[in-house]
Amino acid sequence: MNFLRKIVRPKTKDDEEFYYDLKTLLNFKPVQLNHYKRAFIHRSLKMTDSKGKPINYERLEFLGDAILGSVIASFLYKEAPRGNEGYLTQMRSKVVSRENLNKLGKELDLIRFVKSNINQNQVGENIHGNIFEALVGAIYLDRGYNYCHQFIYDQVIIPYVDLQKLENKISSYKGFIIEWCQKTKRKYLFESYEDTGKQAQKHFSVVVFIDGQKIAKGRATSKKKAEEMAAKRVYYAFQKEINNS
Amino acid sequence: MNFLRKIVRPKTKDDEEFYYDLKTLLNFKPVQLNHYKRAFIHRSLKMTDSKGKPINYERLEFLGDAILGSVIASFLYKEAPRGNEGYLTQMRSKVVSRENLNKLGKELDLIRFVKSNINQNQVGENIHGNIFEALVGAIYLDRGYNYCHQFIYDQVIIPYVDLQKLENKISSYKGFIIEWCQKTKRKYLFESYEDTGKQAQKHFSVVVFIDGQKIAKGRATSKKKAEEMAAKRVYYAFQKEINNS
Repeated sequence: MNFLRKIVRPKTKDDEEFYYDLKTLLNFKPVQLNHYKRAFIHRSLKMTDSKGKPINYERLEFLGDAILGSVIASFLYKEAPRGNEGYLTQMRSKVVSRENLNKLGKELDLIRFVKSNINQNQVGENIHGNIFEALVGAIYLDRGYNYCHQFIYDQVIIPYVDLQKLENKISSYKGFIIEWCQKTKRKYLFESYEDTGKQAQKHFSVVVFIDGQKIAKGRATSKKKAEEMAAKRVYYAFQKEINNS
Repeated sequence: MNFLRKIVRPKTKDDEEFYYDLKTLLNFKPVQLNHYKRAFIHRSLKMTDSKGKPINYERLEFLGDAILGSVIASFLYKEAPRGNEGYLTQMRSKVVSRENLNKLGKELDLIRFVKSNINQNQVGENIHGNIFEALVGAIYLDRGYNYCHQFIYDQVIIPYVDLQKLENKISSYKGFIIEWCQKTKRKYLFESYEDTGKQAQKHFSVVVFIDGQKIAKGRATSKKKAEEMAAKRVYYAFQKEINNS
């Protein structure tokens, strides 16, 4: 354990800050910080290693794009049992569209980690999605596929992928969960509070308790968004019970 | 353990044969045979489940394609440390080209498992690659990502992906291994024998021993191919030592 702690423990004050920021973002402990650092280095820095090999996030972006694609594919395979190959392919393109990935990178405010030599306005919109993909690549190298799977479920699928809504089955997760609790005689509580932290934009957190137990949390830029996110997590946590009720 | 054996044990004579054939092909024990069965059901059978949902390999093909893409991406990321994003993307397209996948499916003779209602000549060339992808999808559902990773390394990367050759570093793995053994004072032995089994086409197996220890095996339709395959596996088994020597 001491050995592990030594690897995990960041070496400089900057590293320490990066480590704790990352840990909050990822919801697990990053081990090899170098992979994550690389995920945010823009080519404009013209950084190279001792052999003259460029260091930036572009190769990680390639890796993360592929991992993301396979996690989304497995999600769709399981969640859309009636969708044929064409439907699955089309849905995946929608989920991993440039627009969606950019939105996601922005929502996670990944740009705050980027080291670049040019103005943020000059880097273009796509940087948000690109560094999201690079981050997935870094997680894969650091902790392997299963951690990517979990991160993508938590950060992409649960907040942004809504097959149920797309298929017009559920219009509000909060409403759905409340109705389900009433039907199955469970007690529920949605607890919300402002949770902006160090971020520039106001944030809210919502915690959902079912029968007195904390089941899930959501955090977003509005109370309503955070509630939906938390309720959707509850939905996935109780998916088997819901399907059987 | 008894519990596991019960799951693993096939139920009918047909299942039993399929199970043992699969086990040899996969190099591990399949657990849920139904996934693998589906991987070889052609749509022409018009098979459906009790709810009228079609049962064929097309959805598994979608899943397997994505998993294959991510394993190849991670291989390329690690093995081509100097390749930029463009190079990696291009190399991946080459590796997972329709032509390559068809060649691979044929080499593994997967068509022998296919259940279809039309003539083999009518199904077209692409069926070979498609059922290879579907098989990867089935492995993912049955045993998870790491088993896919291992299978793809053993069946795609080692026999077919040759960055070293493409980059003109190694022209023959057998030659390379012999030279390396001589240089590092290791004893080597390439043992070959005919190993056709029940297959229609003649096959050969080659086993490589280093310092008296069995390191790797290759099996192919010619002795030379089998030797190269086995030598390449030795190369990957000793990669660290080779890079440091």
